Amino acid sequence: MGKIIAMEFGADHLRLIDQRKLPKEYTVFECATYQDCIFAIKDMVVRGAPAIGAAAAYGVVMAAKQFAGLAESEFRKRMELAIDELSAARPTAVNLMWAMDRMRRSLNAALGGTNESIWLASRKEADAIIAEEIDRSERVSSFGNALVPGNATILTHCNTGSLAVPGPGTALGIIRAAHRSGKGISVYADETRPRLQGARLTAWELLEEGIPVTLIADSVAATLIRDGKIDLVIVGADRIATNGDTANKIGTFMLSVISKHYGVPFYIAAPISTIDFGCAGGDHIVIEERGPEEVTHIDGIRIAPQGVRVYNPAFDVTPAENISGIVTEQGVLYPPFVDAIAQLGH
Amino acid sequence: MGKIIAMEFGADHLRLIDQRKLPKEYTVFECATYQDCIFAIKDMVVRGAPAIGAAAAYGVVMAAKQFAGLAESEFRKRMELAIDELSAARPTAVNLMWAMDRMRRSLNAALGGTNESIWLASRKEADAIIAEEIDRSERVSSFGNALVPGNATILTHCNTGSLAVPGPGTALGIIRAAHRSGKGISVYADETRPRLQGARLTAWELLEEGIPVTLIADSVAATLIRDGKIDLVIVGADRIATNGDTANKIGTFMLSVISKHYGVPFYIAAPISTIDFGCAGGDHIVIEERGPEEVTHIDGIRIAPQGVRVYNPAFDVTPAENISGIVTEQGVLYPPFVDAIAQLGH
Repeated sequence: MGKIIAMEFGADHLRLIDQRKLPKEYTVFECATYQDCIFAIKDMVVRGAPAIGAAAAYGVVMAAKQFAGLAESEFRKRMELAIDELSAARPTAVNLMWAMDRMRRSLNAALGGTNESIWLASRKEADAIIAEEIDRSERVSSFGNALVPGNATILTHCNTGSLAVPGPGTALGIIRAAHRSGKGISVYADETRPRLQGARLTAWELLEEGIPVTLIADSVAATLIRDGKIDLVIVGADRIATNGDTANKIGTFMLSVISKHYGVPFYIAAPISTIDFGCAGGDHIVIEERGPEEVTHIDGIRIAPQGVRVYNPAFDVTPAENISGIVTEQGVLYPPFVDAIAQLGH
Repeated sequence: MGKIIAMEFGADHLRLIDQRKLPKEYTVFECATYQDCIFAIKDMVVRGAPAIGAAAAYGVVMAAKQFAGLAESEFRKRMELAIDELSAARPTAVNLMWAMDRMRRSLNAALGGTNESIWLASRKEADAIIAEEIDRSERVSSFGNALVPGNATILTHCNTGSLAVPGPGTALGIIRAAHRSGKGISVYADETRPRLQGARLTAWELLEEGIPVTLIADSVAATLIRDGKIDLVIVGADRIATNGDTANKIGTFMLSVISKHYGVPFYIAAPISTIDFGCAGGDHIVIEERGPEEVTHIDGIRIAPQGVRVYNPAFDVTPAENISGIVTEQGVLYPPFVDAIAQLGH
């Protein structure tokens, strides 16, 4: 199979694989404006913390073209607004804020130049973000591979592969690396309600690459862990506090409690851009609540009675004490995470 | 709202609310033969351990009419086969085997009489089974209500109401009783993948009765329990071993581990017919595996890639040590369950 390229920036359009439609349809969603890009992030055409950051960086590049005709003070104002709106497209993933900070700095440095030079500077910065993400995810994959025993059965949740992360992925990047190094691994993939990223995306990515995968409903994982069928659990992250508390897709916390209870190693895989150095603990992480229709409907079909109230948090927080290690591009961090994270160069 | 009557036996047809189609459509599925009844059980037109037992009892009644023209030895043979096939329609729920044992005994006692008297005897026994189930579920509801504090927030899983159990239900019967006694309770209902009985049936039953209900994806429950948002968890059972180990809908085990970890009371509600007095522990309980399409498709729409392997157990086993109490029609059993169950009159 060929590499999955979840996003590409052409002359002035951002082309995204439309992840809402996989695996039934493989279609491309074209963004011509930064507003298109915000829609794509909010509606989850593109998702996965590192991919969102990279897509939003190209949103800034498109904004720079959209506002190129304006006077400098007006241009600056509109660009600030665009960056703020892009940052707010999804509240939990910190990589998005991190990418927007980089784009803001690069833009400020370029101001005063020609329209063309400003656009080129922002384009260069976005290209650098994506290139660095690819490099990071390759390093994460390689460091993580060292943790995977031969013939391991790995449980993963949500989607953390090439659709979610520029490059091979984080948790799924490790799974790819382990498979490619001939370890004979196999994978259980949680379907990941309500958006079914595991069923729709992870199962698809693994099948495409010929990695043995078995799909399960999310609540099946607990018995597999208890019964010794899982050697290790690896998941991604949307935001990591400086004490190691980790926000990730809803369902991760549950897996972490069961894994700890039954002594199964539980790893987070994420680039250091996922660490929020301004956030001391999980209590401070804003958890995005999404609309009820993600739970009450599937592909437009109603599966719950009209008028039912729904609570639909997109993420939950796994406390540091449930985490065996955090795999980053600088190596694996071990508890106490507060010390390991404080020592990181960033 | 009127009472929900999930099954009715007329002159010679069994009429079932088609639970596969709720809440979108409220339609009746007619069984004219015991084979129709087996299909209805296998395909989950009717589900819920006590309801399956009652429906299968009427399956025997229909078989008695189907084979009424045969000579006695042939009649006896065909009836034995029908009872065996009905017993095997679903392997985990013990109430089904229990109801079939009763029907077999009643049939054997009636043999030698006229066709009409045999049919009447089996009809009388099936009517008795359903009447006793209604009485039992009312007693379970009332004993369980005593465990529910005022203004309690209750978490439940799958569907254990009037669709699953003749009468008010088991876990949902307790919720109904608590609501009717003016305690101001509210409910979180797990959607219960893969068959979505929580979203489709429990949410519908509770809305019909005006009981405040919030629907959640199964993996949301863990954070609610951790964050102190749940006062008690009540679920049903499909089979209970004599040591208290309990098979119930997949996902129950996970809830039990999280509840125990965070000190939240976790109750099973079930009539004594759910106890398998021949089963010493959960290891001996056969767990039904169902087809992959329950996970890969929803309402005929594919949500996972073609060719993906699926593991789809319908139930899991919650160990006795995670259970705070078992609510039966004879009162609440408390640990050590092995003693409490040994002392039961049955």
